[in-house]
Amino acid sequence: MSKIFRRLVDVVEAVRLLEEALHPSPLGVERVSLDKAGGRVLAEDIVSRIDVPSFDRSLRDGYAVRYEDTSHAREDDPVKLRIVGEVEAGSDKVLYIRRGEAAKIATGAPIPGGANAVVMVEYTREKDGYVYVYKQAKPGEWIQYAGSDVMYGEPVLRKGIILGGREIGVLAAIGVTEVPVYKRPRVAIISTGDEIIRPGDPLKYGMIYDVNAYTLYTRLLEDGAEPEYLGIARDSPKELESLLSRAIGDYDVVVTSGSTSVGLRDNLYKVLSKMGGRGILFHGVKASPGKPTMAAVVEDKLVIGLPGFPVSCLMMYDRIFSNIIRKMSGLGAVEKPRIKAKAGFILRGREGVKYYHPVFLKKVDGKTYFYPIHGGSGAIAALANADGYVEIPENVTYIDVGEELEVSLFSSSIRPSDLIIVTSHSIALDNLIRAFKNSLPEANVKNIYGGSTAAVYAIRDGYNDFGGMHILDEETGEYNIPFLKSIDIRDIVLYRGFLREIGFAVAKGNPKKIRGFNDLLREGIRFVNRTQGSGTRVFIDINLRRTADEQGISFDEVVSMIEGYNIEAKTHTSVVASIESGKADVGVVTRPATIDRDVDFIPLGWENYDLIVNKRSLSSSGMLKAFIQFLESDVARRILRSVMGIKLDDRYMSVLLEL
Amino acid sequence: MSKIFRRLVDVVEAVRLLEEALHPSPLGVERVSLDKAGGRVLAEDIVSRIDVPSFDRSLRDGYAVRYEDTSHAREDDPVKLRIVGEVEAGSDKVLYIRRGEAAKIATGAPIPGGANAVVMVEYTREKDGYVYVYKQAKPGEWIQYAGSDVMYGEPVLRKGIILGGREIGVLAAIGVTEVPVYKRPRVAIISTGDEIIRPGDPLKYGMIYDVNAYTLYTRLLEDGAEPEYLGIARDSPKELESLLSRAIGDYDVVVTSGSTSVGLRDNLYKVLSKMGGRGILFHGVKASPGKPTMAAVVEDKLVIGLPGFPVSCLMMYDRIFSNIIRKMSGLGAVEKPRIKAKAGFILRGREGVKYYHPVFLKKVDGKTYFYPIHGGSGAIAALANADGYVEIPENVTYIDVGEELEVSLFSSSIRPSDLIIVTSHSIALDNLIRAFKNSLPEANVKNIYGGSTAAVYAIRDGYNDFGGMHILDEETGEYNIPFLKSIDIRDIVLYRGFLREIGFAVAKGNPKKIRGFNDLLREGIRFVNRTQGSGTRVFIDINLRRTADEQGISFDEVVSMIEGYNIEAKTHTSVVASIESGKADVGVVTRPATIDRDVDFIPLGWENYDLIVNKRSLSSSGMLKAFIQFLESDVARRILRSVMGIKLDDRYMSVLLEL
Repeated sequence: MSKIFRRLVDVVEAVRLLEEALHPSPLGVERVSLDKAGGRVLAEDIVSRIDVPSFDRSLRDGYAVRYEDTSHAREDDPVKLRIVGEVEAGSDKVLYIRRGEAAKIATGAPIPGGANAVVMVEYTREKDGYVYVYKQAKPGEWIQYAGSDVMYGEPVLRKGIILGGREIGVLAAIGVTEVPVYKRPRVAIISTGDEIIRPGDPLKYGMIYDVNAYTLYTRLLEDGAEPEYLGIARDSPKELESLLSRAIGDYDVVVTSGSTSVGLRDNLYKVLSKMGGRGILFHGVKASPGKPTMAAVVEDKLVIGLPGFPVSCLMMYDRIFSNIIRKMSGLGAVEKPRIKAKAGFILRGREGVKYYHPVFLKKVDGKTYFYPIHGGSGAIAALANADGYVEIPENVTYIDVGEELEVSLFSSSIRPSDLIIVTSHSIALDNLIRAFKNSLPEANVKNIYGGSTAAVYAIRDGYNDFGGMHILDEETGEYNIPFLKSIDIRDIVLYRGFLREIGFAVAKGNPKKIRGFNDLLREGIRFVNRTQGSGTRVFIDINLRRTADEQGISFDEVVSMIEGYNIEAKTHTSVVASIESGKADVGVVTRPATIDRDVDFIPLGWENYDLIVNKRSLSSSGMLKAFIQFLESDVARRILRSVMGIKLDDRYMSVLLEL
Repeated sequence: MSKIFRRLVDVVEAVRLLEEALHPSPLGVERVSLDKAGGRVLAEDIVSRIDVPSFDRSLRDGYAVRYEDTSHAREDDPVKLRIVGEVEAGSDKVLYIRRGEAAKIATGAPIPGGANAVVMVEYTREKDGYVYVYKQAKPGEWIQYAGSDVMYGEPVLRKGIILGGREIGVLAAIGVTEVPVYKRPRVAIISTGDEIIRPGDPLKYGMIYDVNAYTLYTRLLEDGAEPEYLGIARDSPKELESLLSRAIGDYDVVVTSGSTSVGLRDNLYKVLSKMGGRGILFHGVKASPGKPTMAAVVEDKLVIGLPGFPVSCLMMYDRIFSNIIRKMSGLGAVEKPRIKAKAGFILRGREGVKYYHPVFLKKVDGKTYFYPIHGGSGAIAALANADGYVEIPENVTYIDVGEELEVSLFSSSIRPSDLIIVTSHSIALDNLIRAFKNSLPEANVKNIYGGSTAAVYAIRDGYNDFGGMHILDEETGEYNIPFLKSIDIRDIVLYRGFLREIGFAVAKGNPKKIRGFNDLLREGIRFVNRTQGSGTRVFIDINLRRTADEQGISFDEVVSMIEGYNIEAKTHTSVVASIESGKADVGVVTRPATIDRDVDFIPLGWENYDLIVNKRSLSSSGMLKAFIQFLESDVARRILRSVMGIKLDDRYMSVLLEL
């Protein structure tokens, strides 16, 4: 079953191999109408075949004169000129004026022959076929000369520029209607994997929605390509080969995701090796995430094999292939926008690979810090939270707090967040954050889900402004306060939050008739536990100790009797999913996590979900103050009370502890 | 005829009036498919209705185990587990493993019940239905838990964000296929003016192509609107009113250009005043260019009246209306990208108005300078050359060299130029620049046309790297050297360029039979002169002095006999256009300016078009050095020799003078 990557290349070498094999450049020229040309890349130099304007033109309403006739004109002693005609804008009349003559003229109208200046109407008076001019005219005054904007034969736009409003304006001015632009490379997108289904299809057990086809589609559009999604190839070499052959025949580039590693199901390398052309350029990149990345040239077409994990897929597209596609579309390579920032938290590298770490940015006391976003290469949601990424080179084991690095931003419009909320997940708190955001759309709130302890430590480490926690102390049976007192932490304020109902999730109709913790000890009951350190795990263990006492046996004996005590789900919803799929019979969750799910809820009690605030942020962040004011409002109370399984007591938003 | 703006508002007040009257915000929500959602603005918060992944999932090929079973596994002493089944990716089989058991598992496949870790295949050996595990597994190792990427009920995207690849990926991951996005405001574009025709229509005398409709179309698209060009309204209040009424009925916003001033033809104010609604918000802005700008609300629809001159039109759209449209489309207001730069040249303000001066950027000795681009509010080509603009406040008369200002950039991708070429226009030199650019696509060359003296003074003033000149000395009959010696200038090198044929442009067939300068004195011959200071003007005057000597009369007498001596065209092509239109019978031009034109050329002699180089740039700009090397190449010589009316002598590219 096992096989290894033959030779890993680094990212720079991967790009070099592609450049050498392809010399990526535009694939041809097409002509589009002016209204479709915005954002496209000009494919030819444009030389004007007319003068703009094509005639000498008046820039004001007034009278066309010979300036030398007005040299004695004064405010109290006008010069009198005979009006020999009138020229309207758009007129093709060719007048000629001689000494002592003038012609009435409108803005935009052609200057008569013989005239060399225009006097604005404000400085004239017309009477009985004569105009009295009260101001001396300067040579050429208020005349826009033929060709003074664009001359016949003048190169007005160089090929390779991206057409925006100003360039489109120049093309219109010289009468161009069809613009030569580079053809967009046509790119086929293929996803692979038996477990992949299209968004919109019903989600069956074991299946996941195709993410990569859609992220790649959007990125390819941004890079000037014309993408088309051909569908999902099952894990069969035959099916993959037939889809690939069709794509290579019909498109300029083929981009696949998944099937690029060295496992049994990873067919891409095998299939591409057998096809014609220059073959595999590289297979395996010294990068993380993104090691299983490959590229091949088949029948002169580039075939890109990206990893199946969404983060790996997108990062490797960005780092290695995006600029290749941009060169093919004529947009040209771009440097990612970067800013310098200090590490707010320690970041570890990975041995033997360049490590790309998604990060978010936060301004602290006027300085910009970056913090890692965790989630792994499979987690697209974490990536959407990230503002950019840092590169940790191969030979670096870690980046220490305070070290400065360049952060490659995902977009140039990104700005550091106003308010960071790292919190244990709560649907009730989500509703509050959403309402706050709606009331203050300019707030740039970053919301990251972790456990209760993650929320606390993120305050200690400086980047978290606000969070929610629910950690029960085994000895006192008290929530949150003992835990916070037990660790060495400062600058944290604990506010009373809300009560959250906690209980068993069981299959619909509770077929195994589970009522209490002693039922978990029964033969044939499959439990699903929560991870150590979670508030719910503490609640479970306290109850199991009580069960042990009641039954006169030790805690360890109780635990050994529970099938699944060592199966630890990381989230409430993971527990619910285990029950729904039939993998387990029972687990402990909050009531809100069971709303609209295919499980029943057996109440066991209420836990305290309290709120923690970073005191240092409180003095520096106006947005945090605004959020706390919002939490204290009646609106916030109403929102909380409307969630099933949530209760407020009269201490809501009072300070429980200040460290 | 005259009428004045009632009350001018400044730009800030104009924006405030619009904000107050309209409270610009998105106009509604529509649903688009995922592949059409890139770049659109999310109109609703998105809450996940599934867990991602929806089941615990293996992150590696290997064996699903209970980690506690592997606690004694070592490299030389494996643990033996019974294989109870195999799980493929996409399988909906629900396996359950007990103590001492394992299941073969593929990357992406669902974790069997009872298992709490995956051992990578690299650390196992399979034999006779058993797997030997050589490494201890950690709890949860290589498992991606259900909901660990996105939890059921988790708000994944907030409304108001612009959808890019990462966000589209999140939507795909949670199975969304139709995305709620803000509707694009539908904007009608109307141009006005009897002299305006559509690009593509034949260019008759006195007509100019519509520029504004196309620049606005492109800018509106960029700002998230859906523009439609309704056409050109003639200068009739009736026609304008009927087109406006239709547009107001059918569209969300109407944008017009032209007809906004206070002249006779300026119908927009009169027409809008009579229509219903809140009426005129403002008419006239204290800005230059852009004074004749207005806005009205008719039947709750915004009607924007922009100036007819292309630069004014685009600048006022950018400064006043762009962010209003962006708020309607949901994209939200943006600040223009800005950089600080020093004035490289003196810039004058205008009394009583805020003056927006288009500028270009140049790096000199590592510092960024800005330089004004001249051309006037009617000149779209000058605007296309600009990198951005500076604002000169109302009460400031000038900005001195070295003063630092903020430059508002036209795009965030703009970078200062490598090589500035301010030059007297020459088709032959254009061809050289084009060939150089083609050979070195990354060169960022800015090419600005001025006269010979402008080219020289732009070197003195520091911003010009290279130019071409042809200034004849009246006394010596020598080109360029006497002029350069006569002015106080340093750091300039004059290279021999090429010879350019000079002669009369006359109507086809030369009906007035013009052969030499004495023909200009004949009755009924209408001459068109060139501006004072141009090389050609000097050539003309030298020849007229000779004519005076021959005829035994004074120069002044000769001049007074020439009809049109005081009609000064600014460019060669302006002279040609005058002959073509019949406004004049004869003028002096270079032969290349007559190629493909509707005139005949009567040769008079050859002038020296020589090349000047900024010596300071030569030491700092690699691009200038590369350009000079290119000029010295055989390729450059071939290009020059291929232009009709161009000749090289054997001193081409030798240094004539060094100051």
